Amino acid sequence: MKVIVDLCVVPMGVGISVGKYVAECQKVLQEAGLKHQLHAYGTNIEGDWDEVFAAVKRCHERVHEMGAPRITTSIKVGTRTDREQSMQDKIDSVTKMET
Amino acid sequence: MKVIVDLCVVPMGVGISVGKYVAECQKVLQEAGLKHQLHAYGTNIEGDWDEVFAAVKRCHERVHEMGAPRITTSIKVGTRTDREQSMQDKIDSVTKMET
Amino acid sequence: MKVIVDLCVVPMGVGISVGKYVAECQKVLQEAGLKHQLHAYGTNIEGDWDEVFAAVKRCHERVHEMGAPRITTSIKVGTRTDREQSMQDKIDSVTKMET
Amino acid sequence: MKVIVDLCVVPMGVGISVGKYVAECQKVLQEAGLKHQLHAYGTNIEGDWDEVFAAVKRCHERVHEMGAPRITTSIKVGTRTDREQSMQDKIDSVTKMET
Repeated sequence: MKVIVDLCVVPMGVGISVGKYVAECQKVLQEAGLKHQLHAYGTNIEGDWDEVFAAVKRCHERVHEMGAPRITTSIKVGTRTDREQSMQDKIDSVTKMET
Repeated sequence: MKVIVDLCVVPMGVGISVGKYVAECQKVLQEAGLKHQLHAYGTNIEGDWDEVFAAVKRCHERVHEMGAPRITTSIKVGTRTDREQSMQDKIDSVTKMET
Repeated sequence: MKVIVDLCVVPMGVGISVGKYVAECQKVLQEAGLKHQLHAYGTNIEGDWDEVFAAVKRCHERVHEMGAPRITTSIKVGTRTDREQSMQDKIDSVTKMET
Repeated sequence: MKVIVDLCVVPMGVGISVGKYVAECQKVLQEAGLKHQLHAYGTNIEGDWDEVFAAVKRCHERVHEMGAPRITTSIKVGTRTDREQSMQDKIDSVTKMET
């Protein structure tokens, strides 16, 4: 099952700046070979369900290893059976309406 | 890794009433033997990471099988390494402050 | 416009225990006279759009005043024009399917 | 109070393709003069709290007017009192760690 995910990992108990933890998650996604795109409030990820969620788990493990005692993460998960759709397709489906 | 999750599955393309799809997800959680509690905008779930996310995947599969061509799901995921915490502990940590 | 909201306020930069900040938000909702119900990963709120979002803003103001330098909040917002629906109605629409 | 928001509006009961509704929300943000950036699973918005949330409300009103009887929206809301931060700053705080 193909999935498009939006992931936002929030480490708690490590102070106010969390950029390095988010950067580490980008590295996890990179290592997993998953197509992903950072934005100002999360990261879009596209791939096979099991691979994507294995990477999400690894993000939690890695951020805990870096010293964060607590993590709260928001995930949006989209699946569809009617047709294939990429992250770019989703953006295009909106922008083509705006013309 | 122990996790507390809040799950909100939204089937699309099946009309306006989605109660039966959410009820099916409750059944999936029941079958998985996971502690869970329905609220007005989702379901709290507590358990082992892999078991919880296997159940979330089964929810998507089941809701597609029921005829929903598209699903968008919101998940909140909490993990911590400093101590064990149950769903009830989380509620208690707030209510004990209110006295 | 009537709205049902699920609110989860996460103060950052204040350590690992955030119960007192969430309790303060409960007080804000109480003061606003809004129907609300705490669960393990947020609070369901029901009311008029403007009143609910005024309360959400006051939560951010109050939590900053308590010393949190940064807040990240997740909100789910449901509106419908086909019929009135309360938080309890939403729960009932699921549980009546489970029998 | 300055805010950075991530907005994902999901119209229900209008079938499977929702691009035109999301495009209409982009127009609302445009008309409001708010800085915003569409991504594959939502839209980042930056601005004054009241202006941003007035626009979010207008999105719901507009999407209902277009015929959607039900809407479920996910919003992430970030505020901070320690310093000013733009959407671009948030992205930079991650990417500068990756080098």
